[in-house]
Amino acid sequence: MLQVNVELKERSYPISIGAGLLAEPVSYHPLKQGDKVMIVSNPTIAEHYLATVTSTLETLGCVVDFVLIPDGEKYKTLSSLDLIFTALLEKNHNRDSTIIALGGGVIGDVAGYAAASYQRGIRFIQIPTTLLAQVDSSVGGKTAVNHPLGKNMIGAFYQPISVIIDTETLKTLPKREVSAGLAEVIKYGAIFDLAFFEWLEQHISELVQLDQSALEYCIQRCCQLKADVVARDETEKGDRALLNLGHTFGHAIETHLGYGNWLHGEAVAVGMLEAAALSHILGDLSEQDVFRIEKLIAQATLPTISPDGMQPEEYLPYMWRDKKVLSGQLRLILLKSLGSAYVTSQVTEQQVIDAIRRFTQQ
Amino acid sequence: MLQVNVELKERSYPISIGAGLLAEPVSYHPLKQGDKVMIVSNPTIAEHYLATVTSTLETLGCVVDFVLIPDGEKYKTLSSLDLIFTALLEKNHNRDSTIIALGGGVIGDVAGYAAASYQRGIRFIQIPTTLLAQVDSSVGGKTAVNHPLGKNMIGAFYQPISVIIDTETLKTLPKREVSAGLAEVIKYGAIFDLAFFEWLEQHISELVQLDQSALEYCIQRCCQLKADVVARDETEKGDRALLNLGHTFGHAIETHLGYGNWLHGEAVAVGMLEAAALSHILGDLSEQDVFRIEKLIAQATLPTISPDGMQPEEYLPYMWRDKKVLSGQLRLILLKSLGSAYVTSQVTEQQVIDAIRRFTQQ
Repeated sequence: MLQVNVELKERSYPISIGAGLLAEPVSYHPLKQGDKVMIVSNPTIAEHYLATVTSTLETLGCVVDFVLIPDGEKYKTLSSLDLIFTALLEKNHNRDSTIIALGGGVIGDVAGYAAASYQRGIRFIQIPTTLLAQVDSSVGGKTAVNHPLGKNMIGAFYQPISVIIDTETLKTLPKREVSAGLAEVIKYGAIFDLAFFEWLEQHISELVQLDQSALEYCIQRCCQLKADVVARDETEKGDRALLNLGHTFGHAIETHLGYGNWLHGEAVAVGMLEAAALSHILGDLSEQDVFRIEKLIAQATLPTISPDGMQPEEYLPYMWRDKKVLSGQLRLILLKSLGSAYVTSQVTEQQVIDAIRRFTQQ
Repeated sequence: MLQVNVELKERSYPISIGAGLLAEPVSYHPLKQGDKVMIVSNPTIAEHYLATVTSTLETLGCVVDFVLIPDGEKYKTLSSLDLIFTALLEKNHNRDSTIIALGGGVIGDVAGYAAASYQRGIRFIQIPTTLLAQVDSSVGGKTAVNHPLGKNMIGAFYQPISVIIDTETLKTLPKREVSAGLAEVIKYGAIFDLAFFEWLEQHISELVQLDQSALEYCIQRCCQLKADVVARDETEKGDRALLNLGHTFGHAIETHLGYGNWLHGEAVAVGMLEAAALSHILGDLSEQDVFRIEKLIAQATLPTISPDGMQPEEYLPYMWRDKKVLSGQLRLILLKSLGSAYVTSQVTEQQVIDAIRRFTQQ
């Protein structure tokens, strides 16, 4: 078992990575005899893993309840949150209860925000079961639900007490979702770590084929990069914003199509290309490096072009609602070079449109 | 103008108390030219004060929007929260915006939770316009909405950047709400400050008649007592729980009747009497001191008896859902003597029922 620590003083917590962790009682530390637990999951994930998690917790002497919310980004809403609150109240869960998020990014975000809000905050544990959640959303304490007018607009910074990553759960993950997770993996290389980007260029096909040792190295590396930036900047006042490379473009795609039509990672893949193209227009990233990113994204079997019919101008209103907009000024994450990102407000609307157009169907 | 400071290190903030503060630009520090502001209020309060607050902020050069939510405890819901989020998004408010809560406890709680949650947290300012909000709910950072199965079950600890108390707003407050505020005032004397309790015994009729100098002293004293306990224990892991004297009983009354039929302060008044009776049954509070509390509550024109038809046994299921229940054990705030409160789990169900019965219609 590999371990990465997120260092946040009295709110520090471990990320455990390994095969078969869900069936081992020690994974669930510090839960103990008599603790009440509410597992939040969706029907698909519950079918595969709920019995294992429940029986392992019962071995420890925990009292286990569960609540299922429908599967998919479009259910990342205040209504799903309310389902969780109702379950907690009906089963008399109190301030000493623990929520376990068992599932992908949607489950983690909704369950985490429920934990932040229920009785003004109870403990929670992340068990991410998708590659995207394992390398990104389960680490760092960002929780949220969507609003019809904008993604992740309602939420809290709220840290889990531990993250348990069982790499065997990826075996039941649809291929398309493995690829979506790889978009975030590629992002880490592009913004922070040229050596890791080059490692990815050499090992991308092993990752697509779920080679276990490649996956474990990859997940550990991403979690370490994420843990480092979160420790430096928990509430995204500085460096942490770099993790949003491609996300302002990507959120525009997701909102335009309606949540859940493209996977988050798919939208981020195209968004990352548009950010790379804009970096090239500004004279920073070389043409060749834009191609290297495009090639890696294509090898991860991710889209490399805007959704059918979505014109560059249609991105703009969504982009202006982004959480990174400050004092009416659009702020974007761009690349100085491969492995080095920065935040800028120094782009014109025309440059943004030109960058998007490069990856738009004509 | 009187001032009380809430000392919470980098999140410290001032409470300003005085007549006519709403019309003075300096009250709104640190808001400045170009800042975006969303005022959250209800139709009744807006009619009286929205124009004054808006024009004073516009004098400063702020860009001011507002959103009204319906009046009353029954609208302290996730739906009202959603109204605020929609207004913020429609008007393109971002992370640098500020929410101003202009109203009573319901407005403060909902607007504060909206500020805690919108884009994972933006600034907010409390302008409490009821006595209850001025002496209690606007200070200390507790925000919440209700759930059909329990009061204040969903929320956050989230501090304002300042609290502005304009005592002139009490002139438009219905008499019944003034009395409800006095229930919390009496509570401060009972749990923390015998001398203040005795001052109240001498000045209660002046307070009921809105004598301005009595009110200003009273509000300042309550805010100081609240600020002290919040500074010691922001997230209610210790002392702060003492502020809940009478609230576990009171919440049972409010939930049983449906939110908004009795005012919060009215339910707390009867709950405080029941807690006092229980303290007497346990051999702590003298019979005479129970009478002193009952007399003061009656002089404040508050109810001194359970709602029609609500039997002692009907309190129990609601009380067991209280946020203070830990490991299945009911925890109550009781009085050792007038001016001194403590937390205990050492009460039997029968003692609770006997205490309630003393203030139940036969």
